[in-house]
Amino acid sequence: MTIVGHFINGEARSDSERTQDVYNPSTGEVSKQVALASKETVEEAIAAAQAAFPAWRNTPVGKRAAVMFRFKALLEQNADKICQLIGDEHGKICHDAAGELQRGIENVEYACGVGELLKGEHSKNAGPQIDSWSEFQPLGVVTGITPFNFPAMVPLWMYPMAIACGNTFVLKPSERDPSSTLFIASLLKEAGLPDGVMNVVNGDKVAVDTLLEDKRVQAVSFVGSTHIAEYIYTTATANGKRCQALGGAKNHAIVMPDADLDNAVNQLLGAAFGSSGERCMALSVAVAVGDATADALITKMSEGMKALKAGEASDKSNDFGPVITRAHQQKVVGYIDSAEKDGATIAVDGREVSVSGYEDGFFVGATLIDNVTTDMVSYKEEIFGPVLQVIRVDTMEEAMALINEHEYGNGTCIFTRDGEAARYFSDNIQVGMVGINVPLPVPVSYQSFGGWKRSLFGDLYAYGPDAVKFYTRRKTITQRWPSSGVREGVNFSFPS
Amino acid sequence: MTIVGHFINGEARSDSERTQDVYNPSTGEVSKQVALASKETVEEAIAAAQAAFPAWRNTPVGKRAAVMFRFKALLEQNADKICQLIGDEHGKICHDAAGELQRGIENVEYACGVGELLKGEHSKNAGPQIDSWSEFQPLGVVTGITPFNFPAMVPLWMYPMAIACGNTFVLKPSERDPSSTLFIASLLKEAGLPDGVMNVVNGDKVAVDTLLEDKRVQAVSFVGSTHIAEYIYTTATANGKRCQALGGAKNHAIVMPDADLDNAVNQLLGAAFGSSGERCMALSVAVAVGDATADALITKMSEGMKALKAGEASDKSNDFGPVITRAHQQKVVGYIDSAEKDGATIAVDGREVSVSGYEDGFFVGATLIDNVTTDMVSYKEEIFGPVLQVIRVDTMEEAMALINEHEYGNGTCIFTRDGEAARYFSDNIQVGMVGINVPLPVPVSYQSFGGWKRSLFGDLYAYGPDAVKFYTRRKTITQRWPSSGVREGVNFSFPS
Amino acid sequence: MTIVGHFINGEARSDSERTQDVYNPSTGEVSKQVALASKETVEEAIAAAQAAFPAWRNTPVGKRAAVMFRFKALLEQNADKICQLIGDEHGKICHDAAGELQRGIENVEYACGVGELLKGEHSKNAGPQIDSWSEFQPLGVVTGITPFNFPAMVPLWMYPMAIACGNTFVLKPSERDPSSTLFIASLLKEAGLPDGVMNVVNGDKVAVDTLLEDKRVQAVSFVGSTHIAEYIYTTATANGKRCQALGGAKNHAIVMPDADLDNAVNQLLGAAFGSSGERCMALSVAVAVGDATADALITKMSEGMKALKAGEASDKSNDFGPVITRAHQQKVVGYIDSAEKDGATIAVDGREVSVSGYEDGFFVGATLIDNVTTDMVSYKEEIFGPVLQVIRVDTMEEAMALINEHEYGNGTCIFTRDGEAARYFSDNIQVGMVGINVPLPVPVSYQSFGGWKRSLFGDLYAYGPDAVKFYTRRKTITQRWPSSGVREGVNFSFPS
Amino acid sequence: MTIVGHFINGEARSDSERTQDVYNPSTGEVSKQVALASKETVEEAIAAAQAAFPAWRNTPVGKRAAVMFRFKALLEQNADKICQLIGDEHGKICHDAAGELQRGIENVEYACGVGELLKGEHSKNAGPQIDSWSEFQPLGVVTGITPFNFPAMVPLWMYPMAIACGNTFVLKPSERDPSSTLFIASLLKEAGLPDGVMNVVNGDKVAVDTLLEDKRVQAVSFVGSTHIAEYIYTTATANGKRCQALGGAKNHAIVMPDADLDNAVNQLLGAAFGSSGERCMALSVAVAVGDATADALITKMSEGMKALKAGEASDKSNDFGPVITRAHQQKVVGYIDSAEKDGATIAVDGREVSVSGYEDGFFVGATLIDNVTTDMVSYKEEIFGPVLQVIRVDTMEEAMALINEHEYGNGTCIFTRDGEAARYFSDNIQVGMVGINVPLPVPVSYQSFGGWKRSLFGDLYAYGPDAVKFYTRRKTITQRWPSSGVREGVNFSFPS
Repeated sequence: MTIVGHFINGEARSDSERTQDVYNPSTGEVSKQVALASKETVEEAIAAAQAAFPAWRNTPVGKRAAVMFRFKALLEQNADKICQLIGDEHGKICHDAAGELQRGIENVEYACGVGELLKGEHSKNAGPQIDSWSEFQPLGVVTGITPFNFPAMVPLWMYPMAIACGNTFVLKPSERDPSSTLFIASLLKEAGLPDGVMNVVNGDKVAVDTLLEDKRVQAVSFVGSTHIAEYIYTTATANGKRCQALGGAKNHAIVMPDADLDNAVNQLLGAAFGSSGERCMALSVAVAVGDATADALITKMSEGMKALKAGEASDKSNDFGPVITRAHQQKVVGYIDSAEKDGATIAVDGREVSVSGYEDGFFVGATLIDNVTTDMVSYKEEIFGPVLQVIRVDTMEEAMALINEHEYGNGTCIFTRDGEAARYFSDNIQVGMVGINVPLPVPVSYQSFGGWKRSLFGDLYAYGPDAVKFYTRRKTITQRWPSSGVREGVNFSFPS
Repeated sequence: MTIVGHFINGEARSDSERTQDVYNPSTGEVSKQVALASKETVEEAIAAAQAAFPAWRNTPVGKRAAVMFRFKALLEQNADKICQLIGDEHGKICHDAAGELQRGIENVEYACGVGELLKGEHSKNAGPQIDSWSEFQPLGVVTGITPFNFPAMVPLWMYPMAIACGNTFVLKPSERDPSSTLFIASLLKEAGLPDGVMNVVNGDKVAVDTLLEDKRVQAVSFVGSTHIAEYIYTTATANGKRCQALGGAKNHAIVMPDADLDNAVNQLLGAAFGSSGERCMALSVAVAVGDATADALITKMSEGMKALKAGEASDKSNDFGPVITRAHQQKVVGYIDSAEKDGATIAVDGREVSVSGYEDGFFVGATLIDNVTTDMVSYKEEIFGPVLQVIRVDTMEEAMALINEHEYGNGTCIFTRDGEAARYFSDNIQVGMVGINVPLPVPVSYQSFGGWKRSLFGDLYAYGPDAVKFYTRRKTITQRWPSSGVREGVNFSFPS
Repeated sequence: MTIVGHFINGEARSDSERTQDVYNPSTGEVSKQVALASKETVEEAIAAAQAAFPAWRNTPVGKRAAVMFRFKALLEQNADKICQLIGDEHGKICHDAAGELQRGIENVEYACGVGELLKGEHSKNAGPQIDSWSEFQPLGVVTGITPFNFPAMVPLWMYPMAIACGNTFVLKPSERDPSSTLFIASLLKEAGLPDGVMNVVNGDKVAVDTLLEDKRVQAVSFVGSTHIAEYIYTTATANGKRCQALGGAKNHAIVMPDADLDNAVNQLLGAAFGSSGERCMALSVAVAVGDATADALITKMSEGMKALKAGEASDKSNDFGPVITRAHQQKVVGYIDSAEKDGATIAVDGREVSVSGYEDGFFVGATLIDNVTTDMVSYKEEIFGPVLQVIRVDTMEEAMALINEHEYGNGTCIFTRDGEAARYFSDNIQVGMVGINVPLPVPVSYQSFGGWKRSLFGDLYAYGPDAVKFYTRRKTITQRWPSSGVREGVNFSFPS
Repeated sequence: MTIVGHFINGEARSDSERTQDVYNPSTGEVSKQVALASKETVEEAIAAAQAAFPAWRNTPVGKRAAVMFRFKALLEQNADKICQLIGDEHGKICHDAAGELQRGIENVEYACGVGELLKGEHSKNAGPQIDSWSEFQPLGVVTGITPFNFPAMVPLWMYPMAIACGNTFVLKPSERDPSSTLFIASLLKEAGLPDGVMNVVNGDKVAVDTLLEDKRVQAVSFVGSTHIAEYIYTTATANGKRCQALGGAKNHAIVMPDADLDNAVNQLLGAAFGSSGERCMALSVAVAVGDATADALITKMSEGMKALKAGEASDKSNDFGPVITRAHQQKVVGYIDSAEKDGATIAVDGREVSVSGYEDGFFVGATLIDNVTTDMVSYKEEIFGPVLQVIRVDTMEEAMALINEHEYGNGTCIFTRDGEAARYFSDNIQVGMVGINVPLPVPVSYQSFGGWKRSLFGDLYAYGPDAVKFYTRRKTITQRWPSSGVREGVNFSFPS
């Protein structure tokens, strides 16, 4: 059986000792093994990155950018293969994988502009004949630890910019769907990146802790659940590193009485059930203002959901695929059960879905739950499945209050056509990424991605301008030249 | 005896229960008591800040800036009083206190430009008919914990910008010289700042820990010793907060053979002994390249040091004052003793200094130590006294290597007139603030202040542009308006 | 009779040969004479500016900013005097003059942040061991030519930033109300500006042409009518100078059926009649969408206009004052006559206004004209008086089309609460400054001011970030240091 | 014979009426004809651009950038063909053409980052509940008029950014070597650019004047000689357009006594004779400080020049090719004659060069002239040939004075290793692009290109950040939403 290994110092590598099963979630079968790196293997990757740093940091900016331009081209040329690898191990439908990859490529494109982005601040005559300027120098070895749900995109949020800024990188991707991540990283070598600048280690807590504790690692970027994000942030910072750790979410959409409801429903279908809801930006709660709004929303959503089709990744006609594991499938179903038990109404029930030919796949059908309340476990926790819950409130203030009281603050949206309501909402909602009639307000690559409250630990966000700051360290140089010796001829007799 | 209390919700306040002595270090006498806030008092300050936040964040940017313009004017009008308060409790000479205050005022001036600095990033047509923009919203309640050595300046690095950005603030200044800090903060009320936006609590670890643990506090700025900085950073981040913690320093100057030595000596005198060396940017090590350079440096420094005069704060003819406490005086002397014992040469000895009329003051004379080596304790640790140590090396590479190997990386300087040497040095030295013939390369207020390695924990620096990022949280709004209803007349019958 | 002269090289100056009457427009009487500079006098001012340039450009940025901080304080201290001077010669009511001055002061405040604004772009490792950076250096002698309607504010758009950037300045203000401008400029000397950096020459075409043709003048900023703006732009550029020339306006407000009409009417009253409509941002045309909207607008405006009171400048209870001259009064009345003759309906007629005690003042009462069409002369030309014309259209598209077809494109506004209409309007309207429910969308001091089409000639706008670009010239320095001589000891024997 | 035509609305086009010879300057033979567009043809191109504008400006930024990414790839794939076309018509050696193309591609790469570059400035709470932001909207139809010496690069300075910003373009390239320019532009169609967005018209003054006078053309970018640049600037601005017009140059290098002379000579060989000196950044004057420096420079240069080889474009072993025309060849020789007549010393004489097999080519050999003085015609005017003139001065001040007195201020360089001399030079020299030991200080693509004095007319430079400003127009939107109707339920009964 294939063993998915590591990529260290420009070469494929595999530890033989510990491995873990990789499933095809559409069939429910084990398809590969992934190597789990030992502490020594991780240290080897760090050492490779450390060794590659001095030459890479001195490589002119334009040459670093040139690698990114070639990397972008290679990603596009290999898109089909990448999407297939994602589909095989994650289960998301190929069009969805293509969307993920496209978003990832956009981060590479942004890194192509590193010449502009790295510009320092130059102050002439900061004092008498004194100039002062800040350079943004690379940190050295930096690391990323990434989740299963976007095996292509989330790593691409991190290392292209880190590397373009002159750092070297060790990536620890999810062990559940490691193949696309590993393959993508290997394309960097083809793009001309010197060996050792980019390294991938697959693994578990052993690998993570090694990265968090090693003195040579300067910075840690993490995306995953809040529980782990908090651990990463606390541990990395206790080891003196800078850290940005992105955690979980519970994203609400407010549906106002004046919303264009057909539009809202169309948007919600994709935002709630796309990728089986396994997105940190998935819209999992709709807050309907007024019972009339709620009734209409339930009716139209139920109608729209009839057309949704769960199925296998390579079939483009499918709308979404299985969830990642058997255990997760059961967990999602458990949340639906609990909501029902807690008194919510299961308007559309996806618990009994069966996909012909893939009866053992980890599928959950699209589910709509009405009359959810904030005290239910299914509301408080992140389900990460194809489940949309509807809460009914009387006023927009009430809707905003419950969003602001939730522990997460990743994404949110309002459906309205009223300028005042939109502005009040976006100003006062305690959430990092806000949509006005946009249900998945993922920032473009030249803005930055990050939530508020317990959805992000740290002060700089993922990708975009913040990533440039995160992956560089300011150095401020203040310069005054002494008396005009050479210029005025004092040293005229210098040998020339 | 005067008790220096707190400033909470616009009013002077004092806990009666716990106090601590405040000394006049020039006389060695206790001059005041400072209140040590209880947990409850600190929580009251936090509550006041929390309550003041909603209105303050909604105050237009221009009105927030207007407070800063008035604050600047008040600081200038009250400069003499502030400098006297600093001199009485810290001991620095009035001209030095005036310099400190001026640097602090420059941070207020930078905060006056908050309209420019807070500009968000607006992306038109990020998608089809979709606009997206990032706002930099204030965090809420933020805190600063500041050291004794710059009681006016370091707090002014923090709260003017924090407040200008729309946050509310709780400051915990040094309990050793609290009066100037407290007085300055009270001027903000006179400048028109609403009550509760700025609060000061004096105290000790009780106050610090309360601030670090309280859920309402969003961010922590700290300046002090590395040991405490590390504690602050670890604790604040473990509590989910963003944190910037600036620690200790050991700042080296390389003196190259081609340096303008008279100029270098003049610069070093001030940089090593000013403020008794109690500056995190003090130059405490001179690295002479070549014995000829070293010999000439020792000769000229010894000569120059003859004119230096330690003394009481209010006498402008003095060059520097006492150190902060009796214990610190003994610690500094102890470092000189240990250097001597370890084999270094005491070229100029300040241990026996006595200031007429101030025999009980905590004075240490300017001290020059030659033949220091990197294994000596006096080299490894931060002395924070008027002591300049000289290390002799053969090459610039050797000089740079020892700087790069030191645990601190705050400031450094090279004396040369060679463009190539200067560029190589500034590029490769692992230090955050670099001077080319500038011994105290403190960045101007529109750059940012921060060291590398164990001199700073976090990713954003103090004051300048980084402070704007530190005291705000990005919110990205993505907006698409639905069909053209009103515009095309669908809703033409709306009541107007 | 007082002769208003010039301010050259730090001293008040007066040509004796040619003068012109200055009126008090409230009384209709000549109150002063203004000197009209000869070519020689203007050249003297240019020479003073040229001589002051080298030292001023080398003055550290912080010291240049310090002058602006003091200037701001002096403007505030002298506000009453300034407003009185404006009132006496321009006629605007004191509260309006105070508003003008405040806007002007905000431009001084923005110039206080010049340290931030002048930052150059620094590119490390642009090539192998090659750094490159751009500095924004001052131009030298620059000039401003300003209109009567904002004698304080418009000059303050120009010279504070020009001077803060290191340039020296010659201002040619309006000869109709020169006193406040001259007085304000003289405060710069009190603020510590070196003589010669700022100079004012009063005058007519002789002065203007001298400034446009003199080789030493590097740049020209102009605000006035389009006819003159075009002349200035063509002449200045033909003389090889950079130039920004702001011209006339015809600012339309679209009133949508869903607008909050009471709010709209309140806003329109001030925007149309404030300062007698003598503002380039005055709203002079309301475009009502639908007859119902138009009828309601006419009714409510007519009602609201009953309370408006024209009168003398120093009486705060007045809403607006006289127009600037007898000739202009007659011209405004002529436009109303022509509209009437062309078939428009005079809904409120201000032609016969008489102000008790000021019967000879140049007053025109607030006038509302309904049923205006785009072929009328009163629509095509800028009236610059207290006259609001109403055009009735059936659709928003129609409203936008007529705005886009007008030769001017300075300001505009839409009244609506619909997000989609607002976005469509602001995206597609061919106007530089756009209000959404804001009738006078004058940009804040940290944005820039400029119209489109024939309202502005040039590519950089007035004040704000554009002004920094306009008043500086990019210099890009590319630096590579040759072999490591000094660093590696080749020149070790340099005398030290 | 091939007729090189136009590219209008996505199609190759040719006027039949007027044509002009295109030469192969290596052979001296006519190789093609170029069509000279009539006024009607140019207007057709403008009309096509105008028609394409509305859809293109509304195309999301990312899609516009995607065209640039594909265009870059196509330029790389077609590099050999492009370089051959350049060689055939311009005569520059293929490695030099490749360098030109690479520089051009870097401008396309910069345009790929347009998402970042177009970000507007967003000000939240500029007033009470008032937000304000500036968008940078495209202008409409813009034009570029480009010279023969960089037929690939200079057009690529202009239209990629103009188009990426949302404008449509009409290019009028040099009629002397039109083929590469035309071919490159046609690749944009292959890259997916909609028809009409990019158009090329070949022609002469008829075409130029049509572009300058047509009301639909919003902006003009020009690169060429100063005489024409001035005409373009004056005419375009007199027609109310924004314009940037780059003219001629006379670039000096100062050689200081402490310079690394071997390095300086190596640099000067390429900088003076590369591309036969037909570069606006060519170094045509060396100013030697001190006779010892001058003597050594002449000796080493003469030695180095022995190895230089003029020849035909496709032979990589050649160093430079012919000049552009027979007339220009004679003009260059005439300048050498005149210098000789005026008393200069012809140290190396290239007048009699003959290239075997290309005896009728327009070749001039590398020429070194010593003892040049500032009163000689050969010094005052731009030669634009492979001629380096040496001026001897006694001091650096003298060297700088003569540079500052020259009418041009494009590029310059100093050779020194002294930090103070370098800083003094770069600060005070009146030249836009300054090299420290870099003889051709052409800014990287993310800085901007422009000279001072009569080397550039206008205020915004070519390519880089300035180009973004030049090709966009600021629109500032100020937004306040009225009362909270929808939000607070007033309109609750809206049909949903």
